[in-house]
Amino acid sequence: MPKQLPLTDLDACCSPLAREPLSEGQAVELSRLFKAMSDPVRLRLLSLIASHAGGEACVCDLTGAFDLTAPTISHHLKVLRESGLVTGERRGTWVYYRVHPEVLARLSAVLVPGEETVPA
Amino acid sequence: MPKQLPLTDLDACCSPLAREPLSEGQAVELSRLFKAMSDPVRLRLLSLIASHAGGEACVCDLTGAFDLTAPTISHHLKVLRESGLVTGERRGTWVYYRVHPEVLARLSAVLVPGEETVPA
Repeated sequence: MPKQLPLTDLDACCSPLAREPLSEGQAVELSRLFKAMSDPVRLRLLSLIASHAGGEACVCDLTGAFDLTAPTISHHLKVLRESGLVTGERRGTWVYYRVHPEVLARLSAVLVPGEETVPA
Repeated sequence: MPKQLPLTDLDACCSPLAREPLSEGQAVELSRLFKAMSDPVRLRLLSLIASHAGGEACVCDLTGAFDLTAPTISHHLKVLRESGLVTGERRGTWVYYRVHPEVLARLSAVLVPGEETVPA
């Protein structure tokens, strides 16, 4: 069974949530991504990976920023990978992580406030 | 104790997470907002409110979309309100909900993918 989130619903997803109501399916897919980002350590990992030179980082670049054990960091990276927010590729000793920019871009687009919601 | 999320850290928050690493404080504040959005029912409620005519909706506009009891809907609305994503104002019989467009706009901005992460 593939561990990666199937992006079927997200491929077509979504108009800004302030423009039209999300469907149930869209809400389920999006909620999984937001759940992956609902932990401060995972958010910082995501940010460290995305902002790293070249857009990718290995675990060796990440662990120093946290007062956490390697297995804990690995667990959070696994959640990020399974959500589809990041990909991991083993090269030699290390797994190199890279953010899925399309997924970030879709999340960003879905949260753009609608005109109706902007105060006059 | 105020139930509303103090937006102190969010007021200044944040550069796109792909541009520079989030601080611990920023990650904590953002993770609370993403946690509020990590449930499909809450995401649909948020979208229904934000996309409703005039940018606000009362519970009477929302319950019909769900096969859930009124207390369950109320619980989810409370979580959204406490997160700072929506405000609620009682007028007569009903509480009217409105999305905080500034908070949505900040979340959208923080997720914009950086140039480094966009494939060539």
